[in-house]
Amino acid sequence: MEYRIEKDTMGEVKVPADKLWGAQTERSRNNFKIGAPASMPLEVVYGFAYLKKAAAYTNCELGVLPEEKRDLIGAVCDEILAGKHDDQFPLVIWQTGSGTQSNMNVNEVVANRAHQLAGKTIGEGEKTLQPNDDVNKSQSSNDTFPTGMHIASYKMIVETTIPGVTQLRNTLQKKAEEFKNVVKIGRTHLMDATPLTLGQEFSGYVSQLDHGLTALNNTLEHLSELALGGTAVGTGINTPEGYAELVAKYIAQFTELPFKTAENKFEALAAHDAIVETHGALKQLAVSLNKIANDIRMMASGPRSGIGEIIIPANEPGSSIMPGKVNPTQSEAITMVCAQVMGNDVAITVGGTQGHYELNVFKPMMAANLLQSARLIGDACISFEKNCVAGIEPNQKRIDELVNNSLMLVTALNTKIGYYKAAEIANKAHEEGTTLKEAALALGHLTSEEFDEWVKPEDMVGSLK
Amino acid sequence: MEYRIEKDTMGEVKVPADKLWGAQTERSRNNFKIGAPASMPLEVVYGFAYLKKAAAYTNCELGVLPEEKRDLIGAVCDEILAGKHDDQFPLVIWQTGSGTQSNMNVNEVVANRAHQLAGKTIGEGEKTLQPNDDVNKSQSSNDTFPTGMHIASYKMIVETTIPGVTQLRNTLQKKAEEFKNVVKIGRTHLMDATPLTLGQEFSGYVSQLDHGLTALNNTLEHLSELALGGTAVGTGINTPEGYAELVAKYIAQFTELPFKTAENKFEALAAHDAIVETHGALKQLAVSLNKIANDIRMMASGPRSGIGEIIIPANEPGSSIMPGKVNPTQSEAITMVCAQVMGNDVAITVGGTQGHYELNVFKPMMAANLLQSARLIGDACISFEKNCVAGIEPNQKRIDELVNNSLMLVTALNTKIGYYKAAEIANKAHEEGTTLKEAALALGHLTSEEFDEWVKPEDMVGSLK
Amino acid sequence: MEYRIEKDTMGEVKVPADKLWGAQTERSRNNFKIGAPASMPLEVVYGFAYLKKAAAYTNCELGVLPEEKRDLIGAVCDEILAGKHDDQFPLVIWQTGSGTQSNMNVNEVVANRAHQLAGKTIGEGEKTLQPNDDVNKSQSSNDTFPTGMHIASYKMIVETTIPGVTQLRNTLQKKAEEFKNVVKIGRTHLMDATPLTLGQEFSGYVSQLDHGLTALNNTLEHLSELALGGTAVGTGINTPEGYAELVAKYIAQFTELPFKTAENKFEALAAHDAIVETHGALKQLAVSLNKIANDIRMMASGPRSGIGEIIIPANEPGSSIMPGKVNPTQSEAITMVCAQVMGNDVAITVGGTQGHYELNVFKPMMAANLLQSARLIGDACISFEKNCVAGIEPNQKRIDELVNNSLMLVTALNTKIGYYKAAEIANKAHEEGTTLKEAALALGHLTSEEFDEWVKPEDMVGSLK
Amino acid sequence: MEYRIEKDTMGEVKVPADKLWGAQTERSRNNFKIGAPASMPLEVVYGFAYLKKAAAYTNCELGVLPEEKRDLIGAVCDEILAGKHDDQFPLVIWQTGSGTQSNMNVNEVVANRAHQLAGKTIGEGEKTLQPNDDVNKSQSSNDTFPTGMHIASYKMIVETTIPGVTQLRNTLQKKAEEFKNVVKIGRTHLMDATPLTLGQEFSGYVSQLDHGLTALNNTLEHLSELALGGTAVGTGINTPEGYAELVAKYIAQFTELPFKTAENKFEALAAHDAIVETHGALKQLAVSLNKIANDIRMMASGPRSGIGEIIIPANEPGSSIMPGKVNPTQSEAITMVCAQVMGNDVAITVGGTQGHYELNVFKPMMAANLLQSARLIGDACISFEKNCVAGIEPNQKRIDELVNNSLMLVTALNTKIGYYKAAEIANKAHEEGTTLKEAALALGHLTSEEFDEWVKPEDMVGSLK
Repeated sequence: MEYRIEKDTMGEVKVPADKLWGAQTERSRNNFKIGAPASMPLEVVYGFAYLKKAAAYTNCELGVLPEEKRDLIGAVCDEILAGKHDDQFPLVIWQTGSGTQSNMNVNEVVANRAHQLAGKTIGEGEKTLQPNDDVNKSQSSNDTFPTGMHIASYKMIVETTIPGVTQLRNTLQKKAEEFKNVVKIGRTHLMDATPLTLGQEFSGYVSQLDHGLTALNNTLEHLSELALGGTAVGTGINTPEGYAELVAKYIAQFTELPFKTAENKFEALAAHDAIVETHGALKQLAVSLNKIANDIRMMASGPRSGIGEIIIPANEPGSSIMPGKVNPTQSEAITMVCAQVMGNDVAITVGGTQGHYELNVFKPMMAANLLQSARLIGDACISFEKNCVAGIEPNQKRIDELVNNSLMLVTALNTKIGYYKAAEIANKAHEEGTTLKEAALALGHLTSEEFDEWVKPEDMVGSLK
Repeated sequence: MEYRIEKDTMGEVKVPADKLWGAQTERSRNNFKIGAPASMPLEVVYGFAYLKKAAAYTNCELGVLPEEKRDLIGAVCDEILAGKHDDQFPLVIWQTGSGTQSNMNVNEVVANRAHQLAGKTIGEGEKTLQPNDDVNKSQSSNDTFPTGMHIASYKMIVETTIPGVTQLRNTLQKKAEEFKNVVKIGRTHLMDATPLTLGQEFSGYVSQLDHGLTALNNTLEHLSELALGGTAVGTGINTPEGYAELVAKYIAQFTELPFKTAENKFEALAAHDAIVETHGALKQLAVSLNKIANDIRMMASGPRSGIGEIIIPANEPGSSIMPGKVNPTQSEAITMVCAQVMGNDVAITVGGTQGHYELNVFKPMMAANLLQSARLIGDACISFEKNCVAGIEPNQKRIDELVNNSLMLVTALNTKIGYYKAAEIANKAHEEGTTLKEAALALGHLTSEEFDEWVKPEDMVGSLK
Repeated sequence: MEYRIEKDTMGEVKVPADKLWGAQTERSRNNFKIGAPASMPLEVVYGFAYLKKAAAYTNCELGVLPEEKRDLIGAVCDEILAGKHDDQFPLVIWQTGSGTQSNMNVNEVVANRAHQLAGKTIGEGEKTLQPNDDVNKSQSSNDTFPTGMHIASYKMIVETTIPGVTQLRNTLQKKAEEFKNVVKIGRTHLMDATPLTLGQEFSGYVSQLDHGLTALNNTLEHLSELALGGTAVGTGINTPEGYAELVAKYIAQFTELPFKTAENKFEALAAHDAIVETHGALKQLAVSLNKIANDIRMMASGPRSGIGEIIIPANEPGSSIMPGKVNPTQSEAITMVCAQVMGNDVAITVGGTQGHYELNVFKPMMAANLLQSARLIGDACISFEKNCVAGIEPNQKRIDELVNNSLMLVTALNTKIGYYKAAEIANKAHEEGTTLKEAALALGHLTSEEFDEWVKPEDMVGSLK
Repeated sequence: MEYRIEKDTMGEVKVPADKLWGAQTERSRNNFKIGAPASMPLEVVYGFAYLKKAAAYTNCELGVLPEEKRDLIGAVCDEILAGKHDDQFPLVIWQTGSGTQSNMNVNEVVANRAHQLAGKTIGEGEKTLQPNDDVNKSQSSNDTFPTGMHIASYKMIVETTIPGVTQLRNTLQKKAEEFKNVVKIGRTHLMDATPLTLGQEFSGYVSQLDHGLTALNNTLEHLSELALGGTAVGTGINTPEGYAELVAKYIAQFTELPFKTAENKFEALAAHDAIVETHGALKQLAVSLNKIANDIRMMASGPRSGIGEIIIPANEPGSSIMPGKVNPTQSEAITMVCAQVMGNDVAITVGGTQGHYELNVFKPMMAANLLQSARLIGDACISFEKNCVAGIEPNQKRIDELVNNSLMLVTALNTKIGYYKAAEIANKAHEEGTTLKEAALALGHLTSEEFDEWVKPEDMVGSLK
């Protein structure tokens, strides 16, 4: 491989000749061989591209950067955002906890690529842009990395998570309406209980996701706060007057999202409670989705020895050894995602606790976990919706059989003959394997006509939605 | 010990003669000898007392319970709320997951105590109230337990957690103002960085707690939703028309808190995402408090071999073997609380995922964990505020010494001579153990006058709050 | 209330006159009003009693404590271990993280009670024993607390956890043998699969618990290491020659457990990886128990609309509203315990990470969580075994019906006619609602005789145990 | 793109013409678009390659597969293990929870590649090997996936984790010896305490890792148990006599690792407690590493305003804005890894609890998390060792200054003048800012000669290692 020499304040470093990055990126590659290369999420890199461009525009507007430098920086950032330099960001999550090296990776790529755009050859001639003095002007890793991770996270949430959850929610709602007259046995403690409609069951899932979406939306305010302008420790050293507000305005403009400057920059560098907060809502969604997916696979269990009340689409052969088997694979995929999100929540929580003084140095790990959770939930909801929920059909025959056979219809008699006599009927029917009506009449607690009038599954499902 | 005979639908049970509970409570005591007795939080019992009274009033108003029964139920509930029967609730958290037995414990105590209030002897004469048909009228464990746990949790949050956090937040804010002119060295990665004021540092803590309080408040809407009226499976079987709304109104009236009936009762029984949501905010607060308490103990470390920038109150001898030692014990207590809350969050998360069909059966565990976290955070904030934060004083001599000696003041030169030359100065001073100024002049990058004008800690702390 | 004056190095404190504790305990009560009083587990106090007595014997044997002081200390420790002073330990978990105040609580109680035993009145005359110089001789909180928590934890594990798990394991093993000929449908992905015996299913549970017990036993070696002798920072300052080994020998003798002195005292004070390690095994057991209890409740579900393959004991009325309902309440209790243990594991993990320099200051929290988990698992296993597993009976009729009806018996044909043709048969039977045999013959893939010979559930369960 | 038609029991599927996979892989790609493609770890694929080859050899030896098929299967597996087909495994973690589709992916690739090796063109002519009947012979996803994940996990542990931790442990041990005479101040509660040597501090880290390695090794026995031979539900249906033991022998031979057949196959399919157990030990190591890395960064803090007792290598410029800054970046990387491992532990725990009946369907998620943790710990230890620990030097001047100045040297006087008088000296010196000796003499508690003889830091570090 061919190399060129790059320099930083520590001296010279050999860098692959065909790469745009510089000395500090290369040092990081060598010093942090931990896990697979290039594990730093590209979304974070794109977040940097937005903010570097915004910083250039702000610096220019505030008189500390010439227009031609602004335009060069902006042009490279646009190229990065267009995905043209994805292979120029080789660093890992497990680097310095401030993400300094990823910040410098972006600074170096922008500077070297700008040199090319200015018609020159990397490593030759005076540098068109200095990575630290120009590209990083009015910035520090300490405020750029959290800004980049907020941008990346916010975008992932609104572009992937919320649409995914919403699509699932809407299909569940459609199903809830479709199934609103399907009276079925209820189950509590996994045991037979009084009836409800399949639509009511699904309405509970809708309500869970609605609350989850509300909770997630509640966290976006905190996530919209940007650290940029705090620079090294939150004081904004080396930034021009008005910089923080203006750079946030540019970021909002470029991303078309309601970002704003953090009211308190000391928090914004030293703590990442906003990440903790947003991921808390993702974890709540994971809890909800786990419940929903679990219910669906239990209700679809069978085909002959399970519950079998609903039929889910058969998308693939279910077994490599058992012919003809169909499995609730979408439920399995999404519940695995849920478990992962619960784990990620702990990783983020632990990272969040460990800010020291002016800086939290668990930034890349926190960002990576939030982005993974946000994407997995969004993707899994779409997959689950499309390949499972949209195709759910009630197994009406089985549903009717189960509800009509149930002993818990006796509950309707509580208000007529009291809990104790009703229990006597249920126990007798259970022990003797008879119907409730047979037991009721044998005990003489009510007449045949009364029984028929009082014990009707369809009257027991209420008018609640 | 003397016993009397109590009965339920399964037959007779011997109950200690001096106790108000009945057959089902006694069965539960015998069947669930897990951990210390009476671990079910009293707050949940009080939550039940509110709702039983509210149910009685609602049932009466809707014509299904006579006034005298209403009044008896109300009278016993008031006694319970006054703490007169705390020893009548011997059950543990680790019982049936719906909390059925605690619901029956309350039903039985109310019925038997009402019998006494009616001038009779327990076990003699016709029952004044039936536990199931009267006290539990229009209810099920499945809707009462979640209602009781929402009441208990909401009360704990607004009466203990929020006031505790707020008191700490306010004292931190006071300190932030008090210390607003104390210029000190900043630290990032635990390493010396550019200066800020001690007040700015504390303002970051205030901002964390403000965001945490906002997050916690955001969850109260979901927590204010009550399951009552859903009865067995969410359909509201065996409730009179209008019951759910009215009973919530009564609960709101009795507790003076903004409770309302859950829009979707199926969610309210089968999932406890509201508990997950609220605890998520408590966990966020734990993350914030951990950061704050950690910073404070690090800044107070010493007295001679640590950081020593602040002085915290000496509340007790610190060591049983090292005479004269003073330790940051309040930080230790609150960070232990934080760790516990993080653990409780996982317990609640796991419980929250496992609702099956119409019921989640991890209710008592979830309630107990949330109540513990909510109380511990509130109490620990008060303790930390009163016994530590309120007494924090800056160690001005030490602070001045450290800031004036720092190499990171060189950062102010970036915008004057560029990052590279500034780095050269810092490195030279570091290697040779000299002051920055000596190194700067030796390198000839600027004049003595320039140095004095450009490198002033007090000018480096910005105007950000 | 009446008070007396007690003193420590910080001055005078008013203490309730009828209590044995002294100044430092009282300070702690006032300074740490966090959560319920007296939350420090008594098991830890008893652990202290063992070690204080052992230290006295060791100090005496090594010539630094007179015999009469040794005997007084020993006498009070014996009283504590006999439960006579349980109300003298009012402190909370949420105190100094080294447990210094609980160490002093014990020192003070021993000193004051010894004064009484010596025939004097507390607060009058020269102190018979000095809390620091005599009772705490050759000790520090930093080595006593971890020693006390290892003693308490080890005892709880071997006296409660292991016996509880073993009792459950043995009954599951008994059931596995009892059910070894009960051929039933297998289920994978919750869907019908090839058959196995109910005994085989239970043998899997036994194997899980056997592995769990092995894992738990593997951790006891680390837990048997005692910090005592490390004193303040691990160097053993202020201990006589040979102290560490001898005091461990005495502790082993008094507790009749194989304790030994930790090879490295610096780890033993600064890190509590032994607690992390042991709790890791408890968490593994929780994972296993959760699986087992879940299976059992699913198999017992019904009685008419669930799986219904086994019958579990009916221990209590299952519902306050649904008469005659019986629920798998023991499964619910134990799975709640499992969730709690999983949460506690995170609390302990977080605490374990945060040792700083020579001391970990999350000791009381870690001890309390481990003790809770160890007890809950032990108790819950006994409860589950006694009130559920011991009474499990197969529902033979239901089991036969399900296995004979299953489509997955087709798997036996793979080796005869190949996976593809076998799948064709299963699919046809599923779609047309026929038996496998009907479908097989209709497709002409085999003869009636071949089918009868090849497809026998009882031949499909292998000879594996 | 060009496609060819592949078939499975559900019908035809279009597959990219240049790929070796078949219908079921393609279905999975389309049905599970969750997260980045090809996230299933290649280590699991390699685990499959070992076991498919071993199964072929076993089937052949037991007379159910011809030699030429065995050799073809073996040849393709060897190619896979040589990394020649890494791009043929496009599936994600978030698929069916049994990993059925990854099993089929391997079956299909082996079958199609064997067809090529047999000189034919994929899609033309009779299939040389059937994916299900030949490649998957005597297997099921349900036993192959756990086998593959045990192989992958075991290999990662012994090839990456243990060597990495051991390398770090050995360098820490070397440093412990190197620093054995460096007497420094001890710190408990972050506060000054009695002295110890830097070597003693490091010996504690060695002891932690030694215990962690022991704990990890203890888990390997369980992990060495292979599910293969259990097939669909653990009964071993469709396997020839002796298969399970022999296939494990072949796997042990091919991998050169001590694998053996699981004694109980029902556990091996339905529960993954072995993964939980092994990851528990990884989590313990994470706890230990977090403590160690934290201590090192705190001791290295400064250069002028921190603790500054040790000097760590400067590997890269520390700040994009603060010139000359050097940060403890290796500590940051490894503590981020630790947080991730703690999170992964919860994901694995949650997955481990959710086996249902004969199968746990969280397999791919559990495998992926264990492999990530095992690799990250191994890699991070190497990085930390090489780039940080190996280069640690004591800052002797600073160390001497701090220890000589310390008030906690007073502890040596406890055994001479008692704790109370010693405390008086320390308090006086602290309040007046004098030396201990000055305060001691002023109080008249001992003579100058006594002080000099009794208070020597080097005598206070004991003889403990």
